[in-house]
Amino acid sequence: MIEKITSATNPRIKRLTALRKKAKSRREEQAFIIEGERLYRDTPREFLKEIYMTEEFLEQKLGGAAQENITIITPQIMQKISDTDTPQGVLCVAKMPSYDREDLLGDEKKGNPLLLILENIQDPGNLGTMMRTAEAAGVTGVLMSRDTVDLFNPKTVRATMSAIFRVPFLYTDDLVGEIKRLQTENGIAVYAAHLRASKPYDEADCTGACAFLIGNEGNGLTDEAADAATARVHIPMQGNIESLNAAMAAGILLFEGARQRRKS
Amino acid sequence: MIEKITSATNPRIKRLTALRKKAKSRREEQAFIIEGERLYRDTPREFLKEIYMTEEFLEQKLGGAAQENITIITPQIMQKISDTDTPQGVLCVAKMPSYDREDLLGDEKKGNPLLLILENIQDPGNLGTMMRTAEAAGVTGVLMSRDTVDLFNPKTVRATMSAIFRVPFLYTDDLVGEIKRLQTENGIAVYAAHLRASKPYDEADCTGACAFLIGNEGNGLTDEAADAATARVHIPMQGNIESLNAAMAAGILLFEGARQRRKS
Repeated sequence: MIEKITSATNPRIKRLTALRKKAKSRREEQAFIIEGERLYRDTPREFLKEIYMTEEFLEQKLGGAAQENITIITPQIMQKISDTDTPQGVLCVAKMPSYDREDLLGDEKKGNPLLLILENIQDPGNLGTMMRTAEAAGVTGVLMSRDTVDLFNPKTVRATMSAIFRVPFLYTDDLVGEIKRLQTENGIAVYAAHLRASKPYDEADCTGACAFLIGNEGNGLTDEAADAATARVHIPMQGNIESLNAAMAAGILLFEGARQRRKS
Repeated sequence: MIEKITSATNPRIKRLTALRKKAKSRREEQAFIIEGERLYRDTPREFLKEIYMTEEFLEQKLGGAAQENITIITPQIMQKISDTDTPQGVLCVAKMPSYDREDLLGDEKKGNPLLLILENIQDPGNLGTMMRTAEAAGVTGVLMSRDTVDLFNPKTVRATMSAIFRVPFLYTDDLVGEIKRLQTENGIAVYAAHLRASKPYDEADCTGACAFLIGNEGNGLTDEAADAATARVHIPMQGNIESLNAAMAAGILLFEGARQRRKS
Protein backbone atom coordinates (compact mmCIF):
# COMPACT_ATOMS: atom_id res chain seq x y z
CA MET A 1 0.00 0.00 0.00
CA ILE A 2 1.25 3.47 -0.86
CA GLU A 3 0.03 6.50 1.07
CA LYS A 4 0.97 10.11 0.45
CA ILE A 5 1.62 13.08 2.71
CA THR A 6 2.04 16.41 0.99
CA SER A 7 1.52 18.86 3.82
CA ALA A 8 4.34 19.69 6.23
CA THR A 9 1.75 20.53 8.89
CA ASN A 10 0.39 16.98 8.91
CA PRO A 11 0.43 15.81 12.55
CA ARG A 12 2.41 12.70 11.61
CA ILE A 13 5.24 14.92 10.37
CA LYS A 14 5.27 16.72 13.71
CA ARG A 15 5.51 13.39 15.47
CA LEU A 16 8.44 12.26 13.28
CA THR A 17 10.30 15.46 14.09
CA ALA A 18 9.69 14.87 17.80
CA LEU A 19 10.99 11.30 17.49
CA ARG A 20 14.09 12.60 15.83
CA LYS A 21 14.78 15.39 18.29
CA LYS A 22 13.52 14.22 21.66
CA ALA A 23 14.70 11.26 23.72
CA LYS A 24 11.50 11.66 25.75
CA SER A 25 9.27 11.16 22.70
CA ARG A 26 11.29 8.12 21.73
CA ARG A 27 10.99 6.66 25.20
CA GLU A 28 7.25 7.25 25.38
CA GLU A 29 6.66 5.59 22.04
CA GLN A 30 9.45 3.02 22.40
CA ALA A 31 10.33 3.91 18.84
CA PHE A 32 13.02 5.84 16.99
CA ILE A 33 13.98 7.13 13.56
CA ILE A 34 16.34 5.39 11.18
CA GLU A 35 17.54 7.15 8.06
CA GLY A 36 19.19 6.34 4.79
CA GLU A 37 19.21 3.52 2.29
CA ARG A 38 21.73 1.38 4.13
CA LEU A 39 19.90 1.31 7.45
CA TYR A 40 16.55 0.91 5.70
CA ARG A 41 17.82 -2.20 3.95
CA ASP A 42 19.73 -3.66 6.91
CA THR A 43 17.07 -3.25 9.59
CA PRO A 44 15.41 -6.55 10.46
CA ARG A 45 11.86 -6.29 9.11
CA GLU A 46 10.18 -7.04 12.45
CA PHE A 47 11.54 -3.73 13.78
CA LEU A 48 10.25 -1.58 10.91
CA LYS A 49 6.99 0.11 11.86
CA GLU A 50 6.60 2.85 9.25
CA ILE A 51 8.48 3.66 6.07
CA TYR A 52 8.64 7.12 4.50
CA MET A 53 10.31 7.80 1.20
CA THR A 54 10.39 10.30 -1.62
CA GLU A 55 8.95 9.49 -5.03
CA GLU A 56 12.48 9.71 -6.38
CA PHE A 57 13.80 7.09 -3.94
CA LEU A 58 10.94 4.76 -4.79
CA GLU A 59 11.63 5.10 -8.51
CA GLN A 60 15.40 5.02 -8.49
CA LYS A 61 16.11 2.57 -5.70
CA LEU A 62 13.10 0.28 -5.68
CA GLY A 63 12.19 0.43 -9.36
CA GLY A 64 8.88 2.13 -8.54
CA ALA A 65 7.39 -0.81 -6.64
CA ALA A 66 7.40 -1.20 -2.86
CA GLN A 67 7.07 -4.64 -1.26
CA GLU A 68 6.01 -3.00 1.99
CA ASN A 69 3.51 -0.41 3.13
CA ILE A 70 5.12 2.92 2.50
CA THR A 71 4.23 6.58 2.75
CA ILE A 72 5.45 8.94 0.05
CA ILE A 73 6.52 12.38 1.24
CA THR A 74 7.82 15.37 -0.69
CA PRO A 75 11.56 16.18 -0.75
CA GLN A 76 10.76 19.33 1.26
CA ILE A 77 9.12 17.33 4.05
CA MET A 78 11.98 14.82 3.98
CA GLN A 79 14.43 17.69 4.38
CA LYS A 80 12.39 18.99 7.30
CA ILE A 81 12.33 15.76 9.27
CA SER A 82 15.78 14.49 8.30
CA ASP A 83 18.77 14.75 10.62
CA THR A 84 21.17 15.17 7.71
CA ASP A 85 21.82 18.05 5.31
CA THR A 86 21.44 15.84 2.27
CA PRO A 87 18.75 13.24 3.04
CA GLN A 88 18.96 10.01 1.08
CA GLY A 89 15.21 9.90 0.53
CA VAL A 90 14.18 7.20 2.98
CA LEU A 91 13.37 7.39 6.68
CA CYS A 92 11.62 4.87 8.93
CA VAL A 93 10.13 4.58 12.38
CA ALA A 94 11.63 1.54 14.08
CA LYS A 95 10.62 -0.28 17.22
CA MET A 96 13.16 -0.13 20.03
CA PRO A 97 14.72 -3.50 20.78
CA SER A 98 14.35 -4.35 24.46
CA TYR A 99 16.46 -6.69 26.58
CA ASP A 100 16.72 -8.20 30.02
CA ARG A 101 19.84 -8.30 32.10
CA GLU A 102 20.30 -11.99 31.22
CA ASP A 103 20.43 -11.19 27.51
CA LEU A 104 23.70 -9.31 28.00
CA LEU A 105 25.43 -12.49 29.08
CA GLY A 106 25.02 -14.19 25.72
CA ASP A 107 23.82 -17.69 25.05
CA GLU A 108 25.35 -20.99 24.07
CA LYS A 109 25.72 -19.86 20.49
CA LYS A 110 27.63 -16.74 21.49
CA GLY A 111 29.55 -18.55 24.23
CA ASN A 112 31.60 -16.90 26.90
CA PRO A 113 30.20 -13.53 28.08
CA LEU A 114 32.13 -10.49 26.84
CA LEU A 115 30.56 -7.24 27.97
CA LEU A 116 31.17 -3.59 27.31
CA ILE A 117 30.19 -1.38 30.24
CA LEU A 118 29.91 2.37 29.65
CA GLU A 119 29.75 5.13 32.24
CA ASN A 120 28.43 8.48 31.11
CA ILE A 121 29.59 8.40 27.48
CA GLN A 122 28.38 11.71 26.01
CA ASP A 123 29.28 11.75 22.34
CA PRO A 124 26.55 10.18 20.16
CA GLY A 125 29.04 9.21 17.45
CA ASN A 126 31.32 7.54 19.99
CA LEU A 127 28.47 5.47 21.39
CA GLY A 128 27.38 4.38 17.92
CA THR A 129 30.94 3.45 16.92
CA MET A 130 31.26 1.47 20.14
CA MET A 131 28.13 -0.57 19.33
CA ARG A 132 29.40 -1.27 15.81
CA THR A 133 32.84 -2.26 17.08
CA ALA A 134 31.37 -4.29 19.95
CA GLU A 135 29.37 -6.44 17.56
CA ALA A 136 32.44 -7.07 15.42
CA ALA A 137 34.47 -8.06 18.51
CA GLY A 138 31.82 -10.58 19.58
CA VAL A 139 30.48 -8.63 22.56
CA THR A 140 27.48 -10.36 24.12
CA GLY A 141 25.99 -7.22 25.63
CA VAL A 142 26.47 -3.50 26.36
CA LEU A 143 25.58 -2.13 29.79
CA MET A 144 25.27 1.65 30.17
CA SER A 145 24.85 4.03 33.09
CA ARG A 146 21.60 6.00 32.89
CA ASP A 147 23.51 9.23 32.17
CA THR A 148 25.05 7.80 29.00
CA VAL A 149 23.83 9.59 25.87
CA ASP A 150 20.66 8.18 24.27
CA LEU A 151 21.43 5.20 22.04
CA PHE A 152 18.48 6.17 19.82
CA ASN A 153 19.82 9.60 18.97
CA PRO A 154 19.89 9.71 15.11
CA LYS A 155 23.67 10.31 15.07
CA THR A 156 24.24 7.29 17.30
CA VAL A 157 21.90 5.10 15.30
CA ARG A 158 23.72 5.97 12.06
CA ALA A 159 27.13 5.23 13.58
CA THR A 160 26.03 1.78 14.80
CA MET A 161 25.62 0.57 11.20
CA SER A 162 22.55 -1.38 12.36
CA ALA A 163 24.41 -3.15 15.21
CA ILE A 164 21.76 -1.41 17.34
CA PHE A 165 19.38 -4.21 16.28
CA ARG A 166 21.76 -7.02 17.05
CA VAL A 167 23.77 -6.23 20.19
CA PRO A 168 21.78 -6.58 23.44
CA PHE A 169 22.03 -3.48 25.63
CA LEU A 170 20.64 -2.15 28.89
CA TYR A 171 20.62 1.19 30.70
CA THR A 172 20.93 0.90 34.47
CA ASP A 173 20.30 3.35 37.33
CA ASP A 174 22.81 1.51 39.49
CA LEU A 175 25.96 0.96 37.46
CA VAL A 176 28.18 0.35 40.48
CA GLY A 177 25.74 -2.22 41.89
CA GLU A 178 25.59 -3.97 38.52
CA ILE A 179 29.37 -4.05 38.23
CA LYS A 180 29.51 -5.81 41.59
CA ARG A 181 26.67 -8.17 40.74
CA LEU A 182 28.30 -9.19 37.44
CA GLN A 183 31.35 -10.28 39.42
CA THR A 184 29.67 -11.99 42.36
CA GLU A 185 26.65 -13.52 40.66
CA ASN A 186 27.95 -14.14 37.17
CA GLY A 187 31.67 -14.69 37.70
CA ILE A 188 32.60 -11.96 35.23
CA ALA A 189 35.97 -10.24 35.58
CA VAL A 190 35.41 -6.52 35.12
CA TYR A 191 38.42 -4.62 33.75
CA ALA A 192 38.25 -0.86 34.24
CA ALA A 193 40.09 1.27 31.66
CA HIS A 194 42.06 3.58 33.92
CA LEU A 195 45.38 5.36 33.49
CA ARG A 196 46.40 5.15 37.14
CA ALA A 197 47.46 2.13 39.20
CA SER A 198 46.69 -0.23 36.39
CA LYS A 199 48.39 -2.98 34.40
CA PRO A 200 48.87 -3.14 30.61
CA TYR A 201 45.62 -4.32 29.03
CA ASP A 202 47.18 -7.32 27.33
CA GLU A 203 48.20 -8.74 30.71
CA ALA A 204 44.55 -9.09 31.74
CA ASP A 205 43.15 -12.56 31.11
CA CYS A 206 40.24 -12.14 28.71
CA THR A 207 39.77 -15.80 27.87
CA GLY A 208 37.16 -16.26 30.61
CA ALA A 209 33.92 -14.34 31.10
CA CYS A 210 34.90 -10.67 31.25
CA ALA A 211 33.85 -7.08 30.72
CA PHE A 212 35.58 -3.82 29.86
CA LEU A 213 34.48 -0.71 31.69
CA ILE A 214 34.95 2.63 29.89
CA GLY A 215 34.36 6.09 31.36
CA ASN A 216 33.30 9.51 30.16
CA GLU A 217 35.26 11.12 27.29
CA GLY A 218 36.55 14.06 29.31
CA ASN A 219 36.66 12.80 32.86
CA GLY A 220 37.15 9.05 32.62
CA LEU A 221 35.57 6.75 35.19
CA THR A 222 34.21 7.86 38.55
CA ASP A 223 36.17 6.48 41.50
CA GLU A 224 33.10 4.51 42.57
CA ALA A 225 32.89 2.66 39.27
CA ALA A 226 36.65 2.10 38.97
CA ASP A 227 36.84 0.85 42.57
CA ALA A 228 34.03 -1.63 41.97
CA ALA A 229 35.94 -3.32 39.12
CA THR A 230 37.98 -6.51 39.42
CA ALA A 231 41.15 -4.86 38.09
CA ARG A 232 42.34 -1.76 36.27
CA VAL A 233 43.96 -1.88 32.87
CA HIS A 234 45.52 0.73 30.62
CA ILE A 235 46.71 0.88 27.03
CA PRO A 236 50.41 1.79 27.09
CA MET A 237 50.92 4.94 25.02
CA GLN A 238 53.87 6.73 23.49
CA GLY A 239 54.25 10.37 22.47
CA ASN A 240 52.50 13.25 24.20
CA ILE A 241 48.95 12.01 23.86
CA GLU A 242 47.02 12.23 27.12
CA SER A 243 44.40 9.68 26.20
CA LEU A 244 42.84 7.89 23.29
CA ASN A 245 39.37 8.65 21.99
CA ALA A 246 36.93 6.67 24.19
CA ALA A 247 35.56 4.60 21.31
CA MET A 248 39.08 3.86 20.12
CA ALA A 249 40.12 2.71 23.59
CA ALA A 250 37.04 0.49 23.81
CA GLY A 251 37.81 -1.03 20.40
CA ILE A 252 41.44 -1.78 21.23
CA LEU A 253 40.45 -3.44 24.52
CA LEU A 254 37.60 -5.46 23.00
CA PHE A 255 39.72 -6.71 20.12
CA GLU A 256 42.46 -7.73 22.52
CA GLY A 257 39.74 -9.76 24.25
CA ALA A 258 38.69 -11.26 20.92
CA ARG A 259 42.31 -12.01 20.01
CA GLN A 260 42.99 -13.83 23.28
CA ARG A 261 39.83 -15.88 22.84
CA ARG A 262 40.78 -16.91 19.31
CA LYS A 263 44.20 -17.98 20.53
CA SER A 264 43.03 -19.92 23.57
CA MET B 1 51.56 43.56 22.67
CA ILE B 2 47.79 43.68 22.40
CA GLU B 3 46.10 44.76 19.19
CA LYS B 4 42.38 45.06 18.56
CA ILE B 5 40.14 44.33 15.59
CA THR B 6 36.56 45.48 15.91
CA SER B 7 35.37 45.41 12.30
CA ALA B 8 34.26 42.18 10.67
CA THR B 9 35.22 43.64 7.29
CA ASN B 10 38.86 43.97 8.28
CA PRO B 11 40.91 42.20 5.57
CA ARG B 12 42.65 40.06 8.18
CA ILE B 13 39.28 38.59 9.16
CA LYS B 14 38.63 37.70 5.54
CA ARG B 15 41.97 35.98 5.37
CA LEU B 16 41.26 33.96 8.54
CA THR B 17 37.96 32.78 7.08
CA ALA B 18 39.74 31.73 3.90
CA LEU B 19 42.35 29.82 5.93
CA ARG B 20 39.57 28.02 7.73
CA LYS B 21 37.53 27.16 4.66
CA LYS B 22 39.98 26.65 1.82
CA ALA B 23 42.72 24.05 1.52
CA LYS B 24 44.12 26.18 -1.30
CA SER B 25 44.55 29.24 0.95
CA ARG B 26 46.22 27.07 3.57
CA ARG B 27 48.59 25.59 1.02
CA GLU B 28 49.51 28.98 -0.42
CA GLU B 29 50.28 30.42 2.99
CA GLN B 30 51.61 27.16 4.47
CA ALA B 31 49.50 28.01 7.49
CA PHE B 32 46.26 26.83 9.09
CA ILE B 33 43.81 27.66 11.85
CA ILE B 34 43.80 26.06 15.28
CA GLU B 35 40.91 26.69 17.65
CA GLY B 36 40.10 26.28 21.30
CA GLU B 37 41.91 26.54 24.60
CA ARG B 38 43.36 23.06 24.54
CA LEU B 39 45.03 23.36 21.14
CA TYR B 40 46.15 26.92 21.91
CA ARG B 41 47.93 25.68 25.02
CA ASP B 42 49.34 22.48 23.53
CA THR B 43 50.72 23.88 20.28
CA PRO B 44 54.51 24.16 20.35
CA ARG B 45 55.23 27.92 20.44
CA GLU B 46 57.45 27.89 17.35
CA PHE B 47 54.39 27.00 15.26
CA LEU B 48 52.16 29.81 16.56
CA LYS B 49 52.17 32.74 14.15
CA GLU B 50 49.17 34.80 15.26
CA ILE B 51 46.85 34.60 18.26
CA TYR B 52 43.30 35.94 18.33
CA MET B 53 41.13 35.92 21.41
CA THR B 54 38.12 37.59 22.93
CA GLU B 55 38.42 40.02 25.83
CA GLU B 56 36.53 37.46 27.91
CA PHE B 57 39.02 34.67 27.16
CA LEU B 58 41.91 36.96 28.02
CA GLU B 59 40.31 37.90 31.35
CA GLN B 60 38.98 34.52 32.40
CA LYS B 61 41.64 32.16 31.12
CA LEU B 62 44.80 34.24 31.17
CA GLY B 63 44.00 36.55 34.06
CA GLY B 64 43.97 39.59 31.78
CA ALA B 65 47.65 39.42 30.86
CA ALA B 66 49.06 37.84 27.71
CA GLN B 67 52.65 36.62 27.56
CA GLU B 68 52.52 36.71 23.79
CA ASN B 69 51.49 39.13 21.08
CA ILE B 70 47.77 38.79 20.75
CA THR B 71 44.92 40.39 18.86
CA ILE B 72 41.63 40.97 20.62
CA ILE B 73 38.53 40.41 18.53
CA THR B 74 34.85 40.75 19.38
CA PRO B 75 32.72 37.67 20.15
CA GLN B 76 30.80 38.39 16.92
CA ILE B 77 33.93 38.25 14.82
CA MET B 78 35.08 35.13 16.67
CA GLN B 79 31.75 33.49 15.85
CA LYS B 80 32.15 34.48 12.23
CA ILE B 81 35.59 32.96 11.74
CA SER B 82 35.16 29.97 14.05
CA ASP B 83 34.47 26.49 12.74
CA THR B 84 32.37 25.60 15.80
CA ASP B 85 28.93 26.69 16.94
CA THR B 86 30.18 27.67 20.38
CA PRO B 87 33.70 29.09 19.98
CA GLN B 88 35.92 28.88 23.04
CA GLY B 89 37.27 32.38 22.53
CA VAL B 90 40.72 31.65 21.15
CA LEU B 91 41.89 30.97 17.62
CA CYS B 92 45.38 31.01 16.14
CA VAL B 93 47.18 30.89 12.84
CA ALA B 94 49.77 28.13 12.95
CA LYS B 95 52.63 27.34 10.63
CA MET B 96 52.34 24.00 8.82
CA PRO B 97 54.94 21.48 9.92
CA SER B 98 56.84 20.16 6.93
CA TYR B 99 58.72 16.88 6.60
CA ASP B 100 60.94 14.91 4.25
CA ARG B 101 60.43 11.29 3.36
CA GLU B 102 63.27 10.32 5.69
CA ASP B 103 61.48 11.88 8.66
CA LEU B 104 58.73 9.26 8.41
CA LEU B 105 61.19 6.50 9.19
CA GLY B 106 61.89 7.74 12.69
CA ASP B 107 65.25 8.19 14.32
CA GLU B 108 67.35 6.40 16.90
CA LYS B 109 65.20 7.76 19.68
CA LYS B 110 62.01 6.46 18.13
CA GLY B 111 63.65 3.24 17.00
CA ASN B 112 62.17 0.78 14.56
CA PRO B 113 60.03 2.41 11.83
CA LEU B 114 56.28 1.96 12.23
CA LEU B 115 54.31 3.72 9.52
CA LEU B 116 50.68 4.35 8.83
CA ILE B 117 49.91 4.61 5.11
CA LEU B 118 46.54 6.04 4.07
CA GLU B 119 44.90 5.85 0.67
CA ASN B 120 42.11 8.31 -0.05
CA ILE B 121 40.73 8.70 3.50
CA GLN B 122 37.85 11.18 3.14
CA ASP B 123 36.44 11.84 6.61
CA PRO B 124 38.25 14.72 8.37
CA GLY B 125 37.41 13.33 11.82
CA ASN B 126 38.74 9.90 10.88
CA LEU B 127 42.03 11.36 9.68
CA GLY B 128 42.43 13.40 12.86
CA THR B 129 41.64 10.43 15.08
CA MET B 130 44.16 8.36 13.14
CA MET B 131 46.90 10.96 13.79
CA ARG B 132 46.08 11.04 17.50
CA THR B 133 46.02 7.25 17.73
CA ALA B 134 49.15 6.91 15.61
CA GLU B 135 51.14 9.09 17.99
CA ALA B 136 49.96 7.04 20.96
CA ALA B 137 50.92 3.79 19.22
CA GLY B 138 54.43 5.07 18.53
CA VAL B 139 54.05 5.56 14.79
CA THR B 140 57.15 7.17 13.26
CA GLY B 141 55.33 8.68 10.29
CA VAL B 142 52.10 8.89 8.31
CA LEU B 143 52.18 8.68 4.53
CA MET B 144 49.06 9.75 2.61
CA SER B 145 47.93 9.56 -1.00
CA ARG B 146 47.37 13.01 -2.50
CA ASP B 147 43.60 12.42 -2.64
CA THR B 148 43.38 11.95 1.14
CA VAL B 149 41.39 14.73 2.83
CA ASP B 150 43.38 17.81 3.90
CA LEU B 151 45.09 17.25 7.24
CA PHE B 152 44.72 20.98 7.99
CA ASN B 153 40.94 20.98 7.75
CA PRO B 154 39.73 22.47 11.10
CA LYS B 155 37.79 19.28 11.96
CA THR B 156 40.85 17.15 11.37
CA VAL B 157 43.11 19.47 13.33
CA ARG B 158 40.76 19.35 16.34
CA ALA B 159 40.55 15.55 16.25
CA THR B 160 44.35 15.18 16.22
CA MET B 161 44.57 16.64 19.74
CA SER B 162 47.78 18.43 18.64
CA ALA B 163 49.42 15.21 17.35
CA ILE B 164 49.50 17.15 14.08
CA PHE B 165 52.55 18.99 15.44
CA ARG B 166 54.37 15.85 16.53
CA VAL B 167 53.79 13.04 14.04
CA PRO B 168 55.75 13.43 10.78
CA PHE B 169 53.55 13.13 7.69
CA LEU B 170 53.79 13.40 3.94
CA TYR B 171 51.37 13.53 1.02
CA THR B 172 52.55 11.69 -2.07
CA ASP B 173 51.43 11.74 -5.71
CA ASP B 174 52.71 8.20 -6.18
CA LEU B 175 51.45 6.08 -3.30
CA VAL B 176 52.01 2.77 -5.08
CA GLY B 177 55.57 3.74 -5.98
CA GLU B 178 56.24 4.76 -2.38
CA ILE B 179 54.80 1.49 -1.04
CA LYS B 180 57.26 -0.39 -3.25
CA ARG B 181 60.16 1.87 -2.36
CA LEU B 182 59.54 1.47 1.38
CA GLN B 183 59.92 -2.27 0.91
CA THR B 184 62.87 -2.38 -1.46
CA GLU B 185 64.90 0.58 -0.21
CA ASN B 186 63.97 0.65 3.46
CA GLY B 187 63.20 -2.98 4.26
CA ILE B 188 59.77 -2.15 5.60
CA ALA B 189 57.06 -4.84 5.55
CA VAL B 190 53.84 -3.21 4.34
CA TYR B 191 50.65 -4.86 5.61
CA ALA B 192 47.54 -3.95 3.66
CA ALA B 193 44.25 -4.03 5.59
CA HIS B 194 42.10 -6.09 3.25
CA LEU B 195 39.17 -8.40 3.85
CA ARG B 196 39.98 -10.80 1.01
CA ALA B 197 42.81 -13.31 0.71
CA SER B 198 44.41 -12.11 3.88
CA LYS B 199 45.64 -13.50 7.18
CA PRO B 200 44.55 -12.48 10.70
CA TYR B 201 46.37 -9.29 11.65
CA ASP B 202 47.96 -10.74 14.76
CA GLU B 203 49.78 -13.33 12.64
CA ALA B 204 51.73 -10.60 10.87
CA ASP B 205 55.16 -9.98 12.40
CA CYS B 206 55.21 -6.37 13.52
CA THR B 207 58.41 -6.54 15.57
CA GLY B 208 60.53 -5.42 12.63
CA ALA B 209 60.21 -2.29 10.51
CA CYS B 210 56.65 -2.28 9.22
CA ALA B 211 53.71 -0.25 7.98
CA PHE B 212 49.94 -0.62 7.91
CA LEU B 213 48.11 0.43 4.78
CA ILE B 214 44.48 1.55 5.16
CA GLY B 215 42.07 2.36 2.35
CA ASN B 216 39.09 4.62 1.74
CA GLU B 217 36.13 4.42 4.17
CA GLY B 218 33.62 3.23 1.61
CA ASN B 219 35.69 1.41 -0.98
CA GLY B 220 38.75 0.14 0.84
CA LEU B 221 42.10 -0.05 -0.94
CA THR B 222 42.56 0.10 -4.67
CA ASP B 223 43.88 -3.16 -6.17
CA GLU B 224 47.06 -1.35 -7.18
CA ALA B 225 47.85 -0.33 -3.61
CA ALA B 226 46.85 -3.68 -2.09
CA ASP B 227 48.90 -5.57 -4.69
CA ALA B 228 51.96 -3.48 -3.97
CA ALA B 229 51.95 -4.47 -0.28
CA THR B 230 54.09 -7.20 1.28
CA ALA B 231 51.07 -9.04 2.67
CA ARG B 232 47.37 -8.60 3.36
CA VAL B 233 45.91 -8.73 6.85
CA HIS B 234 42.39 -8.56 8.24
CA ILE B 235 40.81 -8.15 11.64
CA PRO B 236 38.62 -11.22 12.25
CA MET B 237 35.06 -10.04 12.98
CA GLN B 238 31.96 -11.61 14.42
CA GLY B 239 28.32 -10.62 13.98
CA ASN B 240 26.91 -9.07 10.82
CA ILE B 241 29.24 -6.09 10.64
CA GLU B 242 30.67 -5.61 7.16
CA SER B 243 33.64 -3.58 8.25
CA LEU B 244 35.02 -1.49 11.06
CA ASN B 245 35.29 2.28 10.93
CA ALA B 246 38.56 3.06 9.11
CA ALA B 247 40.10 4.90 12.07
CA MET B 248 39.11 2.06 14.39
CA ALA B 249 40.70 -0.52 12.09
CA ALA B 250 43.88 1.57 11.93
CA GLY B 251 43.98 1.85 15.73
CA ILE B 252 43.52 -1.88 16.31
CA LEU B 253 46.27 -2.71 13.82
CA LEU B 254 48.70 -0.10 15.15
CA PHE B 255 48.22 -1.15 18.76
CA GLU B 256 48.76 -4.78 17.82
CA GLY B 257 52.05 -3.58 16.35
CA ALA B 258 52.84 -1.70 19.56
CA ARG B 259 51.88 -4.74 21.66
CA GLN B 260 54.15 -7.07 19.71
CA ARG B 261 57.02 -4.61 20.01
CA ARG B 262 56.59 -4.32 23.77
CA LYS B 263 56.60 -8.12 24.08
CA SER B 264 59.60 -8.76 21.83
